Amino acid sequence: MERAISLNLATTRQQWGFAEAVDGCLRAGITAISPWRDQIAAIGLDEAARIVKANGLQVTGVCRGGMFPAETPAGRQANIDDNLRAIDEAAALNADCLVLVVGGLPGASKDIAGARQMVSDGIAAMLPHARASGVRIAIEPLHPMYAADRACVNTIDQALDICETLGETVGVAIDVYHVWWDPNLAQAIARAGRMKRIFAHHICDWLVPTKDMLLDRGMMGDGVIDLKGIRAMIEAAGFFGPQEVEIFSQDNWWKKPGDAVLATIKERVASVC
Amino acid sequence: MERAISLNLATTRQQWGFAEAVDGCLRAGITAISPWRDQIAAIGLDEAARIVKANGLQVTGVCRGGMFPAETPAGRQANIDDNLRAIDEAAALNADCLVLVVGGLPGASKDIAGARQMVSDGIAAMLPHARASGVRIAIEPLHPMYAADRACVNTIDQALDICETLGETVGVAIDVYHVWWDPNLAQAIARAGRMKRIFAHHICDWLVPTKDMLLDRGMMGDGVIDLKGIRAMIEAAGFFGPQEVEIFSQDNWWKKPGDAVLATIKERVASVC
Repeated sequence: MERAISLNLATTRQQWGFAEAVDGCLRAGITAISPWRDQIAAIGLDEAARIVKANGLQVTGVCRGGMFPAETPAGRQANIDDNLRAIDEAAALNADCLVLVVGGLPGASKDIAGARQMVSDGIAAMLPHARASGVRIAIEPLHPMYAADRACVNTIDQALDICETLGETVGVAIDVYHVWWDPNLAQAIARAGRMKRIFAHHICDWLVPTKDMLLDRGMMGDGVIDLKGIRAMIEAAGFFGPQEVEIFSQDNWWKKPGDAVLATIKERVASVC
Repeated sequence: MERAISLNLATTRQQWGFAEAVDGCLRAGITAISPWRDQIAAIGLDEAARIVKANGLQVTGVCRGGMFPAETPAGRQANIDDNLRAIDEAAALNADCLVLVVGGLPGASKDIAGARQMVSDGIAAMLPHARASGVRIAIEPLHPMYAADRACVNTIDQALDICETLGETVGVAIDVYHVWWDPNLAQAIARAGRMKRIFAHHICDWLVPTKDMLLDRGMMGDGVIDLKGIRAMIEAAGFFGPQEVEIFSQDNWWKKPGDAVLATIKERVASVC
């Protein structure tokens, strides 16, 4: 089955704001996007929604909710409140899902099990408003190297365990960068498919060497990830939505003209994904 | 139960060679070490063995064998041959185990399943000599951020699956730095205990932020790892060997005098481990 490309707007965040990125996508024939909340805020939610609707864009996700753990109940409630606003933004853009980067250890905590419980509790607390708004929640398991400071949900299976307790409008965003190393990857993706919980498929590549733990992601084909193999797993599991390209690359792709980045993305998706 | 400290000699590799490190350990009352092969080679295997015997030292491991994957059969055989020499060194030092960092993707490969098979095959090929030499093999699962270039075995469970196929002289070296994030950690350590396959317990800490993916490990207590919690899991699983301190720290601990590093280690093991 033919699969579309979606541009995660982080990929061109140094080149383009929301409107410029949409213009760039349309020039490249790309009609799906996934914006970040700061990019939506910069142009205004109403204008962002107008652009999406006027151009018939698919919004494959809004990045990002999450960041639930905090040292105090008040802190955790403030985080939940922020997620409720994120739901409203995802609803206004008719997004396929709100993507969650769930957060790491609060303060000086060494209690990762406790942080994980705060995540489950936080998602549970936002779910009634999400369901009332028709917004699906996609937990994005992040690479274990982010377990301390960004996301204490680190495998697809762990995310699916949470999904099982919370119900069917909670699923996973599978980003190859975070999960490619998992010895249980094939089984976990198949499980996600049986549960019908694959809500997004993000692509980029893992560079060797990786020079920065956050901002040195590679263009598809420049690294070691078996993108075609993981795509086959995801399609066998029943997901055929757009492949969403999300590349944080401070020293390379963020320094190139946006149109050139999109041209390379199209070429690589056609050849190596 | 009282547990000893072992010094992994990488912790003081910029300050001390093998003999100087042993002298430093003895000054600090530490009588267990884990040397690296380059450190053994620098002083000579016979002299290293003489020092170990003369001082009644426990050698908690020799670092390291492994690095099995290669693009060609000849390359893989060369790697196995090197592991046979490592076994001889571990035997000469009467080490508790030979620690394996198993290797990552060979050449430009994107086939991590294939690399993992090369690892299993490589260990199987070295086992007859290891068993004849009385040397136990400890697979060290490495953090997933090293999956591409250092070790494609990334969880305790994955290592134990290999152990199960290869027999009882193959176990695991559990390094908290590599496994602390694992959502299945408690169950995996318990499984390793039931299999009687915990051969080593390495400690350090995960710093936030981590500035270098290889050489920015923290002193126990300076990071986010629940060292007491993991120690309790390991002791409940039946392992009471020395806690081996292994810190790669190019900008901090490698720049301090070795005696000061050892004094801090003793203080931290007493207070936070």
